[in-house]
Amino acid sequence: MAGTADALLLLLAAGLAAAVWPQPQLLRQDPRSLCRLSSRQFRFAYANDSAVEPGCEVLDGAFRRYWQLLFPPGYKEPAGSNTEDLCPNLLVSVTEAGCSGYPTLESPENYKLSVSVDLMLLTATNIWGALRGLETFSQLSWRDEYGTFYLNKTDVVDFPRFPHRGLLLDTSRHFLPLRAILETLDVMAYNKFNVFHWHIVDDQSFPFESMVFPDLSSKGSYNSATHVYTAKDVKMVIEYARLRGIRVIPEFDTPGHTLSWGPGIPGLLTPCYVSTKPSGTYGPVNPILNSTYQFMASFFAEVSAIFPDFYLHLGGDEVDFSCWRSNPDIQDFMQKMQFGEDYAKLESFYIQRLLDIVASYKKGYMVWQEVFDNGVKVNPHTVIHVWKGHPNFEDEMSRVTEAGFRTLLSSPWYLNVISYGQDWLAAYRVEPLAFKGSAEQKKLVIGGEACMWGEYVDATNLTPRLWPRAGAVAERLWSNETVRNTQDAYARLSDFRCTLLRRGIRAEPLFTGYCEFDAL
Amino acid sequence: MAGTADALLLLLAAGLAAAVWPQPQLLRQDPRSLCRLSSRQFRFAYANDSAVEPGCEVLDGAFRRYWQLLFPPGYKEPAGSNTEDLCPNLLVSVTEAGCSGYPTLESPENYKLSVSVDLMLLTATNIWGALRGLETFSQLSWRDEYGTFYLNKTDVVDFPRFPHRGLLLDTSRHFLPLRAILETLDVMAYNKFNVFHWHIVDDQSFPFESMVFPDLSSKGSYNSATHVYTAKDVKMVIEYARLRGIRVIPEFDTPGHTLSWGPGIPGLLTPCYVSTKPSGTYGPVNPILNSTYQFMASFFAEVSAIFPDFYLHLGGDEVDFSCWRSNPDIQDFMQKMQFGEDYAKLESFYIQRLLDIVASYKKGYMVWQEVFDNGVKVNPHTVIHVWKGHPNFEDEMSRVTEAGFRTLLSSPWYLNVISYGQDWLAAYRVEPLAFKGSAEQKKLVIGGEACMWGEYVDATNLTPRLWPRAGAVAERLWSNETVRNTQDAYARLSDFRCTLLRRGIRAEPLFTGYCEFDAL
Repeated sequence: MAGTADALLLLLAAGLAAAVWPQPQLLRQDPRSLCRLSSRQFRFAYANDSAVEPGCEVLDGAFRRYWQLLFPPGYKEPAGSNTEDLCPNLLVSVTEAGCSGYPTLESPENYKLSVSVDLMLLTATNIWGALRGLETFSQLSWRDEYGTFYLNKTDVVDFPRFPHRGLLLDTSRHFLPLRAILETLDVMAYNKFNVFHWHIVDDQSFPFESMVFPDLSSKGSYNSATHVYTAKDVKMVIEYARLRGIRVIPEFDTPGHTLSWGPGIPGLLTPCYVSTKPSGTYGPVNPILNSTYQFMASFFAEVSAIFPDFYLHLGGDEVDFSCWRSNPDIQDFMQKMQFGEDYAKLESFYIQRLLDIVASYKKGYMVWQEVFDNGVKVNPHTVIHVWKGHPNFEDEMSRVTEAGFRTLLSSPWYLNVISYGQDWLAAYRVEPLAFKGSAEQKKLVIGGEACMWGEYVDATNLTPRLWPRAGAVAERLWSNETVRNTQDAYARLSDFRCTLLRRGIRAEPLFTGYCEFDAL
Repeated sequence: MAGTADALLLLLAAGLAAAVWPQPQLLRQDPRSLCRLSSRQFRFAYANDSAVEPGCEVLDGAFRRYWQLLFPPGYKEPAGSNTEDLCPNLLVSVTEAGCSGYPTLESPENYKLSVSVDLMLLTATNIWGALRGLETFSQLSWRDEYGTFYLNKTDVVDFPRFPHRGLLLDTSRHFLPLRAILETLDVMAYNKFNVFHWHIVDDQSFPFESMVFPDLSSKGSYNSATHVYTAKDVKMVIEYARLRGIRVIPEFDTPGHTLSWGPGIPGLLTPCYVSTKPSGTYGPVNPILNSTYQFMASFFAEVSAIFPDFYLHLGGDEVDFSCWRSNPDIQDFMQKMQFGEDYAKLESFYIQRLLDIVASYKKGYMVWQEVFDNGVKVNPHTVIHVWKGHPNFEDEMSRVTEAGFRTLLSSPWYLNVISYGQDWLAAYRVEPLAFKGSAEQKKLVIGGEACMWGEYVDATNLTPRLWPRAGAVAERLWSNETVRNTQDAYARLSDFRCTLLRRGIRAEPLFTGYCEFDAL
C-alpha cells in the first residue's frame, strides 16, 4: 500500500495522474494505458440496458454539469491530435427505475466504473449511485502541457462506509444568501456529502418564511425584505439538493435557542422574572401552556409538508433552566407535576409532547445528545446527534448505542472553530467507531456531520473556512477505515483543492505551493 | 467620553449617524443639524486658494473614486426631495504645491474637515493629507430608509499618531494575483494605512521579474508564465499605491530565506555538506565569495532604481547556521577571519557588506530585529523591525531605542495567525509605547506593521482573514492613544465592516448580526 501511495504521489506531482477525493473503496489505475478525452467527441449517454432513460432530470442535469466541469469554459481542443486513442462515450447504466423521488437514508449509493479506450461504463443500482460515479469520473481526467485531456485505464468499485454524511450550515447567526447555500451544495456533491443539515433558525434570527405564521420571519428575521428564505427559496434549495443526491434536513431547535421566535408568536416564550416581577426578558419555549403545543402542532405540520425528507432535526440542546426557575407559574407547574427541582424533567415533558406531535406526521427525528442524556423517552428510531467534546465523545457513543439508538457524530468536526496551521489533519484522524462497544453497537453509527456554526461566519468567509477542510470529514465518512495515510491524503486533498479552484470555488490552501489556476 | 461613545452607539444602531474608522483625533458631530447629499448636485472641487489644481492626477482620481463610493452603482436618488437643505460641494484646499511625487516617511498627513449646509471644506498641508480627509469624508454619509443620503454637521481635526502604518503581504509562500494586491491597496487606503511592505520573494518562490537576472523568476517562480510579477506589474502596484498615498517598500530578505534564488544564480547559495561531501542541498547565501557581492551589487542597483521609496527592507531574519557550519570552505574562512565558532559574526560580515552596497545607492534600509540583536554595525538611520514575540517585544523595543535606533513593531500583529472568536481585540489592545524608556526613546517608534505571512494564505482567503482585523492595527497606529474603548470600537468596526462590504470587499463579520448588503 505504501508503495502504491508513493507511486501515486509521484504521478500527481508530475501531473500525470488524477487523484480522487474521497478515496474510492477500490481504485485501480494503469498509468501506461491512456485514452484521449475530446470535447468534440465525448458525451455522456444512457446505456441500452439502463432502467433509467433520457428525460430523467437528475441524470440529464448531471451530464450537463459534469461535461462543463470536464471542459472549462472557453476550452479549445488542440488541433491535429490523432483519433486512434479517443476515449469513447461514458455509458451509464442504472438497475432500478425511478428518477422523480428523493434520496433517503436507505438509498444505496454504490457504483462501478470502468474506463478504457474500448469501453467506458458506469453502473449503479440507482440514480444516486450514478451521481457519485459521475463525480468520481469527473476527477479522473488530467491535462498535458498542450491542453489535451486524458484518462488512464481505470477500474473503480465504490460505496460509502456510512450512509449519513452531513454538513450543517447555520443561517441564523448570520444569514447566508441563497447563492452561498447553492454553491455549498455543489461542493458537497464534489465531496460525496449527502445530507444538508439546515440549522435554519436560532436565537439570533428567524429567516424561514412560514405561510401559517408569517410573523415569525417578518418580526424575527434580521431584515424581512432581504434576510428571509421565502417558500420559493426553500423549494429551490430542496430541488437543487435533490438533483445532486443530497437530502435536506431542516432543524427547528426548541425549547432553547428560540429567542427569535418570540416577537412573531406572543406568549410562546417563558417570561423571566427578577424577584416577583417579569424582567422583560424571555427564556426557552413555555412548556406549561396548551397554546404552545397548539402552535407547535400547526407549525410542524407545515414544516413536515415542506421538507420531503423523512427526518426532521428537533434540536433540544443547551436548555438554560434559569429563566424557567425564576417564573412562578413554572414553579407551580413543577410542583403540580411532582418534578421537584429537576428541570430536566420539565424539558423531557416538553420534548416528549413535541416528539409525539412530529411522529403523528409520519416523520422521524434527530435530536442533539442532551435529549438522550436527560432521559427523555424517545421512539427507538430516533437518531441521537453527538456534539459535545467533553469529557469525550467516545463514551457518549458507547452509551447511546448501548441503549440501542442510532447515532451521528459531530463532536470533533466543528469546522467553524479554527486554529492556525493544518487543522484539517485533526478532523481527518478521527475514527468514528473507536469507542467501546459490540459490533452491533458499531452498526448503529449511521455517520456524522461537519458543522459550520455561524457566530463568526457569513458569505464573506464561508467558502474558504469550509473547503477543503470539510473534505477531511467527507473522506472519513465515505472511504474505507483503512484510508488513513496523511501523506497520501495531503497530496490528494491538495490536488482536489486545485480542482475546486478550477471549478470556481474559493477553497483555501493546505500549505505553501500553488495551483495552475490560482494566479487568475 | 463614555457618554459620547454611548450616544454614538445609539445613533449608529439607529442608522442615524456614521462611524469613522480609524477614529480621528478630533471629531465633532451634531446629530440635529443635517444636509442632504444629492448625487445630482454634489461634486468634489478644488478651492480657489488651493496650491494644487485640476489636473492633479492624485486628487482628480480620488475625487472620481470617492464619488463612486458615496453613491453606489445604479443609485437612483429619491425624487421630490426639497432643495433647501442640500449639502454644497466639498471644496478641497491644499497648502503645498506638488502632485507628481511619492509619499515619504516624512510627509505630513494632517487635514481638517468642516461639513455643514453652508460650507464643506477640506484643508490639508499636502495631497497626502487631502487623501486621508477624503476617506474620512466618505465615511460620514448615511442613508435613510427612502435611500436619501445625509451628512451631519461635522468638524474634524486629524493627523496620524505614527508616520509608518504598514501592512505586509507575502507573495512567495503563495503567489497573490495582481488584482488581490490592488484590492488590498484599496482597503489599506480605507484604513489610512500608508506603507505596503511587499515581502515579495522567499524560500518558496521568486515571483519578481528582474531584467538583469531574468533566471531568478524564470527558474525560481512557481510558474514563470503565470506566477510572476512583471516589470509592468510592479510599476502598476507602485503607481496604484502612490495614487492612494501609500509607499511601497519591497523586501528582499537575505542571507536566509533565499532557497528560490538558487536555481537562477548558480553559486549564490552555500552548498551544505554531509561529512566530507556536498549533500546536494543548499543553505543561506554564500558570504565568503566575491561573486556573491558582485551579484548583490547589480541586483540591488536594479531594485533601487525600480522602487522609488527611500527605504528598502533587507530582511536578515532567521539565518540557519547549520549549513554554513557543515561547509569546509566556510570553516576555513571562519578561521581566517578569526570568527571562532561564532557564526553570527559571519552573518554580520555579510550584512555589513550588503548594507554598504545599498547605502551607496542612496537608499535607507529596514531590517528584522536579528540584525540588531547580533550586533551588526548599521548606520544610525536604520529602522529595526521588531517581530519576535518571545520573551516579549517590550524589552526589545527598549533595547533598540536605547541604542538610538528607530523601530517598527510587528510582534503582536501577525494576522496570518488566527484563533477562534474575536481575535481583533488582542491586536487592538496593544500599546506600542508601553515599554520602559525615556520620552526620547518613545519618539524613535515610527509605527508598526500588520503582517500577513503566506504559508496558509492565498487569494482565496486573504481578504476575509485580513479585514476587518487589520483595521484594529490601523486604528492603533492612527488614532490617539486614548482611543481604547473596545465597546465603542466594536460598534464602529462592525459599522466599518458593513461599509467595506458595500464597497465590494469580503470583510468577515466580528460576531453575529448582519449588514444591509450581506444578503446579496
